[in-house]
Amino acid sequence: MSRGYNFCAGLAALPEDVLDQARAELLEWDGARASVMEISHRGKDFVALAAQSERDIRELLAIPPGYKVLFLQGGATQHFAQIPMNIARRGQSADYIVTGDWGEKAAKEAKPTVGVRIAATSEATNYDRIPARETWDLDPNAAYVHYTPNETIRGVEFMTVPDVGGVPLVADMSSTILSRPIDVSKFGLIYAGAQKNIGAAGLVVLIVRDDLLARSPKDMPKILSYAEQAAQDSMLNTPNTFGWYLASLVFKWLKKQGGLAAMAERNRAKATLLYDYIDGSGFYRNPVEVSARSWMNVPFTLPREALDAPFLAESEAAGLLALKGHRAVGGMRASIYNAMPLAGVQALVDFMKDFAKRNG
Amino acid sequence: MSRGYNFCAGLAALPEDVLDQARAELLEWDGARASVMEISHRGKDFVALAAQSERDIRELLAIPPGYKVLFLQGGATQHFAQIPMNIARRGQSADYIVTGDWGEKAAKEAKPTVGVRIAATSEATNYDRIPARETWDLDPNAAYVHYTPNETIRGVEFMTVPDVGGVPLVADMSSTILSRPIDVSKFGLIYAGAQKNIGAAGLVVLIVRDDLLARSPKDMPKILSYAEQAAQDSMLNTPNTFGWYLASLVFKWLKKQGGLAAMAERNRAKATLLYDYIDGSGFYRNPVEVSARSWMNVPFTLPREALDAPFLAESEAAGLLALKGHRAVGGMRASIYNAMPLAGVQALVDFMKDFAKRNG
Repeated sequence: MSRGYNFCAGLAALPEDVLDQARAELLEWDGARASVMEISHRGKDFVALAAQSERDIRELLAIPPGYKVLFLQGGATQHFAQIPMNIARRGQSADYIVTGDWGEKAAKEAKPTVGVRIAATSEATNYDRIPARETWDLDPNAAYVHYTPNETIRGVEFMTVPDVGGVPLVADMSSTILSRPIDVSKFGLIYAGAQKNIGAAGLVVLIVRDDLLARSPKDMPKILSYAEQAAQDSMLNTPNTFGWYLASLVFKWLKKQGGLAAMAERNRAKATLLYDYIDGSGFYRNPVEVSARSWMNVPFTLPREALDAPFLAESEAAGLLALKGHRAVGGMRASIYNAMPLAGVQALVDFMKDFAKRNG
Repeated sequence: MSRGYNFCAGLAALPEDVLDQARAELLEWDGARASVMEISHRGKDFVALAAQSERDIRELLAIPPGYKVLFLQGGATQHFAQIPMNIARRGQSADYIVTGDWGEKAAKEAKPTVGVRIAATSEATNYDRIPARETWDLDPNAAYVHYTPNETIRGVEFMTVPDVGGVPLVADMSSTILSRPIDVSKFGLIYAGAQKNIGAAGLVVLIVRDDLLARSPKDMPKILSYAEQAAQDSMLNTPNTFGWYLASLVFKWLKKQGGLAAMAERNRAKATLLYDYIDGSGFYRNPVEVSARSWMNVPFTLPREALDAPFLAESEAAGLLALKGHRAVGGMRASIYNAMPLAGVQALVDFMKDFAKRNG
């Protein structure tokens, strides 16, 4: 076994217990005499898995009645486009709060379908903060308000859910979902690509309030309609069954860890360890305003760009993987999602200390 | 090891060699010190996998220059809707040749986007044949002609590619792709859900001629545009990397089997063994016209419906899995895709003989 500590931001590390179980039953799942990939999604075994996974995520996030949970495909990006198709009426506009690259992309992909208003943005300060709430220019008649609670690339996170009045709040939670408890009742629609805290790429989880489901136009293709997918329990066509299965294992793993309150404690401790070290190092630097620093993605720079290549080569050699920052930002980025243990962050800090000493 | 012979039509059996390899490297892929699910799709390791998988499917299908291969998500059903969005101009209609339930669904999902003309259908005879070519009412100005080379539910397959003149031919090959050589140059667009002959559900492979790619409107959401996906090598957003990886293993496995000419021989032999036995049995019955009988999906009925339940119970007990027919048809269905060995079909025939003797 020579798995490294994997700090990849995009397709994140999975809990090793989950991978171990997936490996153990890859050829024969739960007495099916076949892989979970090789059985009908309409058979009783898979339907039971699907139902249990929904119960588990409902329990983990304390999802109140009046919301449906969907397990779909296409990545968050497809839903950038699908959300306005479903919940904006013709001629309506939607408000976007942009605090980073993903919020920008969400707004762009919505444009062919809905009038997009940028109600607030921190672009002017290079997405280093959350724009002050009193500066937001919200339209009370908007179809919805969209925001990105955690921006993966620059590591900017909302610490509280913004109050947007009576307009439905839509959140791309791809890189923060399940990292801490949230109050689902404050949201109209939550969606998240699975490849950070839920499982593997190719699955998207949506949590949609019933009144928004009712907005899906009747004359759109059924496969793109949230209402139709909800009516069919996300099985309007063959779902990504292996992805759904992995998510079901992750949900069980999270429950075994003590649920989201326990994960929040652990994630807070991991982030604090890393930010405290960076701030005190006099060598590394994180540009994000302290109150908006992400628990999940920690970008940092070295004092000279010339140190980036040796830092990356030496960290890889030390089993600390995928620390290269996003091309839009440069420097380094440590993504410390749920599956990253405190020991991994400690190993990173130890390496950073040593590297700083040798190159300071 | 107690894997059965799996005749499931929807999520089909995978080659055991492929599953063995996936299991062996599930936690550590190719020296990455991480699973293939846990590494960036933009890193050089995954990009190399993607490029090799494209070379392999190009070699297997002898795809000529002038076609792009896309690895997308959403199942064939999503592309029922996406194809007209991309390749039909506003106000144009498209011709559909309907020889079964999937062709029907494809036409229905296209309707919100394009004028749908049913140019031919065998619905009147319960989809037991291909309508004679001279009866097809084709529109030379259609945006495209869509057909379903193999209908999974009723087991009806085209043995040759229909000539539709200069109109681009679009084929949903989900349940027949890679089962035999085809002449790709006769098609404008081929698409296939992966869960039969390519890999696992959650991946769709499209083969699109360049002139059709040029039809994608500029003002549609990028994520739904084939042109944009082609320009980004199917990585406009994070692809289903595990599904893509499994497909890459299946392509390698097919090359090791001798390619599609060898698979065609094997598939013909499997189908012949089963149909010949059914026809000669005086007990089982297949309703499809002999010239249109599918090599991949073989539905059959027993002389009395009361025998269905014992047939299913006893076949399951004998390790012959998932033989229940589709609810729209009843009876049994044996799906004998690429991964089903001749020995599996022989085991089925032996069981059927014995069952007939005991219940005749």
